[in-house]
Amino acid sequence: MVRESEIRDGEVVVTPPSADDAGLVFIGRIHTPWTSRMEAPRQGRIDGPVCRIDVFEPWVQALDGLAQYKRIEVLYWLHMSRRDLAMQSPRNDGAVRGTFSLRSPARPNPIATSIAELVRIDGATLLVRGLDCLDGTPLLDLKPDRAGFTPLAPPQAGDFQVGEPA
Amino acid sequence: MVRESEIRDGEVVVTPPSADDAGLVFIGRIHTPWTSRMEAPRQGRIDGPVCRIDVFEPWVQALDGLAQYKRIEVLYWLHMSRRDLAMQSPRNDGAVRGTFSLRSPARPNPIATSIAELVRIDGATLLVRGLDCLDGTPLLDLKPDRAGFTPLAPPQAGDFQVGEPA
Repeated sequence: MVRESEIRDGEVVVTPPSADDAGLVFIGRIHTPWTSRMEAPRQGRIDGPVCRIDVFEPWVQALDGLAQYKRIEVLYWLHMSRRDLAMQSPRNDGAVRGTFSLRSPARPNPIATSIAELVRIDGATLLVRGLDCLDGTPLLDLKPDRAGFTPLAPPQAGDFQVGEPA
Repeated sequence: MVRESEIRDGEVVVTPPSADDAGLVFIGRIHTPWTSRMEAPRQGRIDGPVCRIDVFEPWVQALDGLAQYKRIEVLYWLHMSRRDLAMQSPRNDGAVRGTFSLRSPARPNPIATSIAELVRIDGATLLVRGLDCLDGTPLLDLKPDRAGFTPLAPPQAGDFQVGEPA
């Protein structure tokens, strides 16, 4: 039995510092067709099943204006994930790579980011496609996809700052 | 004096639940040319100035394999941001929109995501372009940009699951 949270050959576990540098509040809950990490997609697909996001109070009014965006960025908390793996073996074949070179759910801060297609917003509920997480995953944030978003705030000096050529 | 953390005409502040549903560990520190929120770019640009990311122990070995990716996703903690705004006025003109329809730093969980160009990794230090944050911002995560990443783990059933047509 692999594929859940056991440590595989060659993987490196560290003793992480305690995770109290900042605190998160769960702002909603995500409902998907997947109840096991053995069946969930490795990455969401934009033509995938429709998933439901329920937003909690007092944040429901913060959805105002989001419906105009077709693609949104969804951040969620991978609550079932180990946080102490520095080197991982995705194929469980003894070959390992650093955690930061993977999009594995096991990471020091298990925050997932997905680009989802927004199907509809209905009160406190969003319907989206493109997620990859387990049913019941806690929601952290919603924002327009950067590719389709133009800042509304006035320009600042840094907007125009470019670097030396590579 | 606007543009820092004061509340503007029309903005809606809520009393958020305490932020203790999950805890974060800062895994590094980001160094940029910007020391004031009045000058930082509203969004990073891929031809922007080179910024430095210092990764803390015990996570340095987790960088193994990351150098092969030209574009990486960087997650960081916007430590100066308010977390209680549900409606915001980006132009400070009385017109407001919901927080989730903006990429403003002020949000219930102030996590920023940027796609950066990886210039070089040198031990525990990364040089990147494309960030927009203040000097000293805490690092939360690094991963390959989804657009350039192919999962190494074996396929799972969910990978092949598509939804009903819209």
